Amino acid sequence: MFKEIAHTKIYLQILEQIKENIIRGNLKSGDRLPSERQWAEQLGVSRATIREAIRALEMIGLVVCQQGEGNFIAENFEDTLTQPLTIMFWLSNGQLSEVQELRRALETEAAKLAAKKMTPERFASLEKICDAIETETDETVRAELDKRFHYEIALASENRMIRNVLQSSATLIEALIKDIRIAILDDPDRGPVIDTQHRHILNALKAKEPLNAAFAMSQHMDLIDGFVAGLEIDEH
Amino acid sequence: MFKEIAHTKIYLQILEQIKENIIRGNLKSGDRLPSERQWAEQLGVSRATIREAIRALEMIGLVVCQQGEGNFIAENFEDTLTQPLTIMFWLSNGQLSEVQELRRALETEAAKLAAKKMTPERFASLEKICDAIETETDETVRAELDKRFHYEIALASENRMIRNVLQSSATLIEALIKDIRIAILDDPDRGPVIDTQHRHILNALKAKEPLNAAFAMSQHMDLIDGFVAGLEIDEH
Repeated sequence: MFKEIAHTKIYLQILEQIKENIIRGNLKSGDRLPSERQWAEQLGVSRATIREAIRALEMIGLVVCQQGEGNFIAENFEDTLTQPLTIMFWLSNGQLSEVQELRRALETEAAKLAAKKMTPERFASLEKICDAIETETDETVRAELDKRFHYEIALASENRMIRNVLQSSATLIEALIKDIRIAILDDPDRGPVIDTQHRHILNALKAKEPLNAAFAMSQHMDLIDGFVAGLEIDEH
Repeated sequence: MFKEIAHTKIYLQILEQIKENIIRGNLKSGDRLPSERQWAEQLGVSRATIREAIRALEMIGLVVCQQGEGNFIAENFEDTLTQPLTIMFWLSNGQLSEVQELRRALETEAAKLAAKKMTPERFASLEKICDAIETETDETVRAELDKRFHYEIALASENRMIRNVLQSSATLIEALIKDIRIAILDDPDRGPVIDTQHRHILNALKAKEPLNAAFAMSQHMDLIDGFVAGLEIDEH
């Protein structure tokens, strides 16, 4: 299954081998990787080298290390890009508005795709969330429901690339501005408009109108942009 | 500068420390990191542990290791997300259309932002590329110029998050379909339309009309979608 390798950037070679095995159908999500010792012997490299490669893969969320159980290919890649995206942000002296613009691009496209692919079951689930946001009074629960609403749209887009980058950018925004959803929902100018905007998005999704769904999402993002523009980034 | 640490996921702690130092302004792009030995002593961990952390950071493109020179914070993050995005794609059994939809979302938003921020210098550079694409006869050079045209728009968006994710998704598409730009430019149905579409984008950018720029880019992406829809992924 794994070939012997003889190059300097061994972790890149190991990565390449894992990828090849995935493409050929020998490895899939949730599968256990060879033990570090077994793998080192097979490849003719040191265990330390194998460990470096596995740590690197763990760091980017592709491999999950379970104490005493071994190393597994991850089953969920939603957080894979969060760490690299976050560090890239800090290293490039990023602005919050840049992350919000990235999020806007993805939320809008996700809404468009979700409208094309909307099913009665998915619509029922989204409608239930909208109903709950409107009747809920606890601000923390309302913020959670709001997050769920956007997440379900990303799911309904049936595009895992968009969904994962979107999740990572939303996670980054939330890390930069603690309780940003609660703050927007509580904002005297913006809070009262949110429920109506969610309904507009929902209606366009129900009607399976991609351009209207994208437009409604874009208006929703305008409102969030306005809020974000006045904020400073938390340093933790 | 760096504090002692005592936790299990040491590479995550090291990452956290690098991030903190960046936020506080002690570390910036291009800076040299402490030597592995020096750093291990400071933190009270083994050199192997430090090396694992550095390999992981190198893998996601945040640290550059120069043989005999030491480890440096990268100066360019355009490729940071390519590796994680690519592996995520293979592990989730990705479809080419998903990457193309991601690219569409980002190209469209980049065109919108570029129109808002267009300067005479940037416009002149884009116009020169458009002129060159139209007169050039070598298909490889034409494909390079096409790439440059899209890259300059991403630069003009002045959004490094969008630019970097866009670069990574474009790189992934090109890895999946070798010579995809040449193939589209040579396509008897689509090739002749490309130059006109580039001009439409260029005109909207010149007029600083964000919505028209986004629309023109979106039509350009429709044409590419049509091409991509008929393709199989290369396995290498």
